[in-house]
Amino acid sequence: MGQDSFTPQKRSSIGGGGLPTTNNAAAGGGRARVLAGMPRGRQIHKTFNNIKITILCGFVTILVLRGTIGVGNLGSSEAEAVNQNLIEETNRILAEIRSDSDPNDPDEPPETEINPNATYTLGPKIRDWDQQRKVWLSKNPEFPNFVNGKARILLVTGSPPNPCDNAIGDHYLLKAIKNKIDYCRLHGIEIVYNMAHLDRELAGYWAKLPLIRRLMLSHPEVEWIWWMDSDAFFTDIAFEIPLTKYDKYNLVVHGYPDLMFEQKSWIALNTGSFLFRNCQWSLDLLDAWAPMGPKGPIREEAGKILTANLKGRPAFEADDQSALIYLLLSQKETWMDKVFLENQYYLHGYWAGLVDRYEEMMEKYHPGLGDERWPFVTHFVGCKPCGSYGDYPVERCLRSMQRAFNFADNQVLKLYGFRHRGLLGPNIKRIRNETVTPLEIVDQLDIRRSGQGKTESLS
Amino acid sequence: MGQDSFTPQKRSSIGGGGLPTTNNAAAGGGRARVLAGMPRGRQIHKTFNNIKITILCGFVTILVLRGTIGVGNLGSSEAEAVNQNLIEETNRILAEIRSDSDPNDPDEPPETEINPNATYTLGPKIRDWDQQRKVWLSKNPEFPNFVNGKARILLVTGSPPNPCDNAIGDHYLLKAIKNKIDYCRLHGIEIVYNMAHLDRELAGYWAKLPLIRRLMLSHPEVEWIWWMDSDAFFTDIAFEIPLTKYDKYNLVVHGYPDLMFEQKSWIALNTGSFLFRNCQWSLDLLDAWAPMGPKGPIREEAGKILTANLKGRPAFEADDQSALIYLLLSQKETWMDKVFLENQYYLHGYWAGLVDRYEEMMEKYHPGLGDERWPFVTHFVGCKPCGSYGDYPVERCLRSMQRAFNFADNQVLKLYGFRHRGLLGPNIKRIRNETVTPLEIVDQLDIRRSGQGKTESLS
Repeated sequence: MGQDSFTPQKRSSIGGGGLPTTNNAAAGGGRARVLAGMPRGRQIHKTFNNIKITILCGFVTILVLRGTIGVGNLGSSEAEAVNQNLIEETNRILAEIRSDSDPNDPDEPPETEINPNATYTLGPKIRDWDQQRKVWLSKNPEFPNFVNGKARILLVTGSPPNPCDNAIGDHYLLKAIKNKIDYCRLHGIEIVYNMAHLDRELAGYWAKLPLIRRLMLSHPEVEWIWWMDSDAFFTDIAFEIPLTKYDKYNLVVHGYPDLMFEQKSWIALNTGSFLFRNCQWSLDLLDAWAPMGPKGPIREEAGKILTANLKGRPAFEADDQSALIYLLLSQKETWMDKVFLENQYYLHGYWAGLVDRYEEMMEKYHPGLGDERWPFVTHFVGCKPCGSYGDYPVERCLRSMQRAFNFADNQVLKLYGFRHRGLLGPNIKRIRNETVTPLEIVDQLDIRRSGQGKTESLS
Repeated sequence: MGQDSFTPQKRSSIGGGGLPTTNNAAAGGGRARVLAGMPRGRQIHKTFNNIKITILCGFVTILVLRGTIGVGNLGSSEAEAVNQNLIEETNRILAEIRSDSDPNDPDEPPETEINPNATYTLGPKIRDWDQQRKVWLSKNPEFPNFVNGKARILLVTGSPPNPCDNAIGDHYLLKAIKNKIDYCRLHGIEIVYNMAHLDRELAGYWAKLPLIRRLMLSHPEVEWIWWMDSDAFFTDIAFEIPLTKYDKYNLVVHGYPDLMFEQKSWIALNTGSFLFRNCQWSLDLLDAWAPMGPKGPIREEAGKILTANLKGRPAFEADDQSALIYLLLSQKETWMDKVFLENQYYLHGYWAGLVDRYEEMMEKYHPGLGDERWPFVTHFVGCKPCGSYGDYPVERCLRSMQRAFNFADNQVLKLYGFRHRGLLGPNIKRIRNETVTPLEIVDQLDIRRSGQGKTESLS
């Protein structure tokens, strides 16, 4: 074998900047030139080398394409591009909507530091609200606080003004408000759905405090403000709150006296669903409740106090529920005579023990009971479908919320002659044929007609 | 140079199944062995080859990693994985919820073919609805059809039961229903938010027909059923529909007589917002309207008739709006004496000509006008935020819907002492300090108080 006539030319462009291509791999003529005059062994070796380079280059090309157009989308790059376009446009406008400053607003204040030393207040101290309200009601008989013998209730709920981190969250916020609309329509209750941050310091779960105060002062005709979390669903559409039970009380909240006073548990009551009477006492309670709320060092330090004093409380910043428990425990004589810890029915019903029993409930019981047999409210504590991280598996939460929604919706659809096929899917089916005398059904089934002031059985 | 002692061993694993790794590339000892006894030129050549393979293998490794953990995410693979997990779980449960069949439902019927030859009806023919209703109302004085001198209205809207194709769609459905809740609370109007497919044949935009009929027959106390699309926003919160203007009519719909009777235009009226009186005439109109609706061949063929007869109509299946126009044109004498084509105010206001003028409106005019100076309803025809493909750029639609939402919300927040900083962002600011006499403001600003029966100016 003679001297190798090969000179160290680049046979691929790897050493340079570009990607290797199969063009540079030994092929056809190039190979023939190189192989002339070489021993067979070396020919094989060279051929082998070239094949290796060819395969490797081909492989790299595929990987690069894959990275560019996406895994498995070799055939659907156009749809992918359109979808990607849509997502990008949406994100662009969302970023603009989300941004704090509006270029068109001339009096946007500069960001000010929240001064932890300044005493936080919900507003100027009002001392004669009962009197003011009484005078107003007497002057405005067209806005009575009792309608058809029933005290006027305003249900308040809400969610943040920005889209949820998890896309499915907005869908369940929508279903939750539809659920509340249905219940409130059937019970003559008005709704305020809040999407505004009324107070920058009392953000998050504390936001309900300035909101409740604001609504009380703006709606003197309202006797009870009923706060309800956005992740709570009405599941007994027939049940009516027994308001006369609370004639002597100003705060009705689901809770357990023993958990409260003996165990000092941080879940002794639940502020996901409670009623505040529109009166001076409530304004005072809000003022006493708020001080742990301002975000930052105050809320952090308050959280430590609460964790130290309430059984089972994890370490995190002060939340409104723990703060209320702590307030009622530490100032028991001031407040507790007007607080009703209700547990005869599920003004708040913790979802985990309820949602798997809906079929059993449908088999054995009926709407109107409001308790563990047919829960008034199913509250998805800890699911946080709007955020990214809940305390439970997403799948379990979504499935359960859908079941609660359908369970409630069945009770609404009954008047219209339908029910859901199952508790999970969206489809419905007829349970009754249409007739030419539809009002007979209305007489039997309209919850409002059979249920005025009702708190018990409706077959 | 002697015979090459190299034997054709694989120096990389490319020829086999695995990925090339740098281990197999010539390095250290392997190279020394090969180079012994070779001419310098060939040594250089071999070295060069080995370097090429090494670089190529390293490059491939990087590409593979990139494809696995995502572009630019070399440092955030964990967050990416959690997010991906969340998306997968969500999609899994959504797929289950979306599926038509419920494994627990024993009487799920088999999918039946829709028979195009069978005559479609909304339900059994009722001929004496006015009489039935009159009798019922007299027997049920606690459910009058007039409250405080005002006819009872039920606002009906809705959206499909499944999450939107475009995630942002659910967020704007939520904002739209909040907007409707606000308007209706201030005007004593009840809401039904429908998320059920009452009739498989009349799906899509036709779904409102069986729904309206069903609600009329189930709510005899309701005098007017007001259908409103989910993509329509109230933008004049003070404006009240002048119902007494329609004492002699049974259908009130935004439209133009010349577009209708002279031009036979397919947009002569808009079925995105209209009122139906709860009476026999309306049941008859629904029956006459429905036949073009059943999906499949009937709707397709009907679409061709409509395109052929209505000016400007594109070719697509029959829609409810075109069908109504066609019906009213072809049976003018039967129906038109009870149809009011309203255009004195924007019972439906096409968004494109309105949303950019909100600032000008705020500067020059005030709520309560309802017309082009301060539109009653801004309707986002063609935006389809819930779907994937609207007729307008997504960014423009989302921005415009947000502006309409804020424009309306400002009118609601005014009572509470706030307004949005701008029309795009979510943030609000105080426009009034809190006082210890909040009821003075209520007297001035509560829309219900200054606005009973009002259709004109409110400063």
